[in-house]
Amino acid sequence: MHVEILSIGDELLIGQTVNTNAAWMGEQLLQIGVVPDWVTTVGDNADRLFSAMRVAEERADIVLLTGGLGPTHDDITKAVACRFFSSDTVLDETVLQAIRERFARRGIPMARINEEQAQVPRNARVIPNDRGTAPGMIFTENNKRFYIMPGVPFEMQSMMQRVVLPELVQLLGAKNIETRTLATTGIAESTLFAELGDMKKLEASARVAFLPSLCGVRIRLTATADRTTGAVEKLNRAENWIRERVGDFIYANRDIGLEAVLAEELIRSGKTVAVVESCTGGLLASRLTDIPGSSNYFMQGVVAYSNKAKHEVVGVPQELLEKHGAVSRAVAEALAEGIRGKAKTTFGLAVTGIAGPGGATAQKPVGLVYIACAEEGATVVEEHRFADDRLGNKMRTAQAALNLLRKSLFNLHIK
Amino acid sequence: MHVEILSIGDELLIGQTVNTNAAWMGEQLLQIGVVPDWVTTVGDNADRLFSAMRVAEERADIVLLTGGLGPTHDDITKAVACRFFSSDTVLDETVLQAIRERFARRGIPMARINEEQAQVPRNARVIPNDRGTAPGMIFTENNKRFYIMPGVPFEMQSMMQRVVLPELVQLLGAKNIETRTLATTGIAESTLFAELGDMKKLEASARVAFLPSLCGVRIRLTATADRTTGAVEKLNRAENWIRERVGDFIYANRDIGLEAVLAEELIRSGKTVAVVESCTGGLLASRLTDIPGSSNYFMQGVVAYSNKAKHEVVGVPQELLEKHGAVSRAVAEALAEGIRGKAKTTFGLAVTGIAGPGGATAQKPVGLVYIACAEEGATVVEEHRFADDRLGNKMRTAQAALNLLRKSLFNLHIK
Repeated sequence: MHVEILSIGDELLIGQTVNTNAAWMGEQLLQIGVVPDWVTTVGDNADRLFSAMRVAEERADIVLLTGGLGPTHDDITKAVACRFFSSDTVLDETVLQAIRERFARRGIPMARINEEQAQVPRNARVIPNDRGTAPGMIFTENNKRFYIMPGVPFEMQSMMQRVVLPELVQLLGAKNIETRTLATTGIAESTLFAELGDMKKLEASARVAFLPSLCGVRIRLTATADRTTGAVEKLNRAENWIRERVGDFIYANRDIGLEAVLAEELIRSGKTVAVVESCTGGLLASRLTDIPGSSNYFMQGVVAYSNKAKHEVVGVPQELLEKHGAVSRAVAEALAEGIRGKAKTTFGLAVTGIAGPGGATAQKPVGLVYIACAEEGATVVEEHRFADDRLGNKMRTAQAALNLLRKSLFNLHIK
Repeated sequence: MHVEILSIGDELLIGQTVNTNAAWMGEQLLQIGVVPDWVTTVGDNADRLFSAMRVAEERADIVLLTGGLGPTHDDITKAVACRFFSSDTVLDETVLQAIRERFARRGIPMARINEEQAQVPRNARVIPNDRGTAPGMIFTENNKRFYIMPGVPFEMQSMMQRVVLPELVQLLGAKNIETRTLATTGIAESTLFAELGDMKKLEASARVAFLPSLCGVRIRLTATADRTTGAVEKLNRAENWIRERVGDFIYANRDIGLEAVLAEELIRSGKTVAVVESCTGGLLASRLTDIPGSSNYFMQGVVAYSNKAKHEVVGVPQELLEKHGAVSRAVAEALAEGIRGKAKTTFGLAVTGIAGPGGATAQKPVGLVYIACAEEGATVVEEHRFADDRLGNKMRTAQAALNLLRKSLFNLHIK
C-alpha cells in the first residue's frame, strides 16, 4: 500500500512553521506498519494543490491531506477537492449542529463563515471534528482514497486516531514494524560502516540507516514481522550483531544525548564530577547540567581561558604552563587533577585546546585538543584533532570530553 | 522562477527526524525573495527518488535536493543522479585531496569508502564541502538546474550560503529584493507588534515578518525596487520607523547573536567580563566564548551550583545564603561583585535561579531568576520569571544576562 502525505500552507514553504504534522503522521503510520513513500508540501495555491493531488493520485493508493480547511480567504482545500472530484456541496445538518454547539459552549456568537463550514462535498464521507469547526472528508475514487483533514495539529491528530488509522489498519491486515536507535559516539560513520562488515547479513534481520551529527552517529534499525514479538526478536538480533563489532561505541539503544546516560549512571553510583574548560568555554558544564537533578553529581565548573586563571583558580604550576604551553598533555592532566582536588569530586574533567580560527601555531593547529579525566589514582589524557569551525570544534570537543568521562565511568578501554 | 525542495531520507518519512532542512532553506530563499512552490520528501529508495526528480524537473526551474550523499549503503543520491542525467563519474583530485587533508588534520585513518566520495559525476559542477567529506553537485540540463547537497544540516547550510543562494540571486537578476533583519531582545512579539503601531504605514516601505525565538524576536524587512539603491532607501525608512518606536530593544540590524555585538564593543572599548552562574550551568560563559577573540574580554567563568561553591569560589557570605537563599537579589548581587573582584574585570555578571523541573518552593517557582551586573561603583539586579522547560529557561536566562550586560555596556535605561 503506497501512502502519500500532502501538506498545504505557505507558512510551511517559507520555513515559518516546521512540518511537524507530517512527522507526527509518519510516526503514527509506522506504528501500524506503513512507511509513507512521499511527503509533499504545497502553498495556499489552488492550481498547484490541484496538480499535486493529480500527482499523488497517480502514484499513491492512500493520500493523507492536511491544511487549508479553515474559514478564511486563504483556505482553499475544500473548493479544490470539490473541483478535483467534480462534486458540489450540501449542507450537513449534523456538522452545522456541532459547530453551533461549539460556539454556544464558548458563549461567543457564531460568524457567517463558520456556517459555511457545514457545507460539505456531496460525494465525500465526513470525518467529525471534535476539536474544532472544520470537518474532515474522505473521498474514494477508483480504489484511491483521499483523507482530507485540518492543519491544526490536535484536530488532525484526533481525526487520525479516531478514523483514519483504524480504517488503514483494516485495509492493511496486520503487519508490524518496530524500530530501534543505537546511539554511538567517538567513531566516524565510515569506520562504523567498515567495522560492521557484511551489511547484507545484518540487513537480513533489520533495515539499517546511519544518521550522523556533530555528537556521533545514530544507527536506526527497522524490522518488520507479522507479530510484534517477531519484529522485536529481529531487532535484538541486529543489535547483538552490531554490539559484537562496535559495542563500546554505543552509549544507548534509544535516541538520547550522552549527558543523559552519564547523569543516570553518576546518580546511580553516587559519583560526582567537576570540570575545567578552556576552548569549550562553558559548553561542557552546560551539557552536564542540561539534565534535571544535575546538582546531585555536578559539583563545580570553571572556565579558565587565561594561563592566569589556570594557575590561580585551578592551581596549575606556572612552570608547567611555560614549559609545555596551555594546550598540552601535561596541562590537561594538571587541570583535571587540580579541579578534582579543589571540588573533592570522584572525577575531574578538563579540556584545553584551540577552537580557532585564531590561536594556532606551527606545532599546534586549530582543532588540536587535549582532554583529561582524573579519578582516584589514575588520570587519562586524550589528544584529538578536529577539523571544524569554532562552534563545531567546541561541540565536538565537549562531546569527546563527555565520552572520556563515559569510558572512565563504565571502565571502557577504547581509544 | 519556480523552485522545488526535494528532501531524501527514510528518517523524514517515519517522523524520526523533522524536516528542519526544508524549513531552513525556505527561510533563506524568502530572504532573496523566492518562495518555493513544492517541498517533496522521499525515502532512501532509488526508483522513487528517480521519479520524484522527474516530477520536479517537469514543474520546477530550480531543484534543491538534499540527503543521501553519505559514504554508506543507504546513500543512493549520487548513483540516481548519474542515472537521471546519464552521466558516469570521474575522480576529482581536488575533492580527494580535501578529504585526505580532512582525515590527516584529524589524525585518523581514511576509509576506502571515503575515497569513493571523490568520484563525482562527469557532467556536474562540484560544490566543495568545507564541513564534511561529501561534495555537493550542480547539474544543468535544458534550463533546469539541480543543486544536490548533503542532508547534514551544517554541511548543507554552508553550501547554500557559499554557492547556491548567490547563484540564485544572480539568476533572479533585474528586480532588486533587499532584506534586512533587525535583531531585538527583551521585548515580547505581541508588545513589539503593539509598539510599532500602524503596520500599513510601515509596510508601505517594506514587507515585515516577525521571527520569534528563545533569544528574542527578529524583524525581517523585505523591500523591492528597480534599483538596489531604491530598495535600500525603503529599508532605511522602515528601519527608522521601527527604531523611533522600539530602538532600545534592537541590538543589531543584521541577523547575528547578541554575544557578537557584545564582543565587538568589549574589544573596541578594552573592557572585560567575568561570569558566575548557577541555573545556566555554563551556557552563559559558552555564549560569551562563541566569538573568535573572546580571550580578549572574557577573563573567567565559574559554574557554582552548590552554596558551598558560591561561598568558597566566589566568596558569598554564608549568612547571606542562609538569610535570603541562593536564589535571591542579595546573593545575585554578591555573586556579581564577588566574581568581579576575583577576576579584576570591568564587569562581573551573575545568574542565580531555578531552571526546573525540580527545586521550586512556594515562594520561589520554577523559572524565577535573578541576574546581576556589577561594575565600578554600581551593581544592577534584575528579577525575571520565565515559564519554559529546563532548557528553555536556561536559554532565556543566558540571553537576559547578556542583555543586562548590553544595557550596562551601552548605558541603556530600559527595564
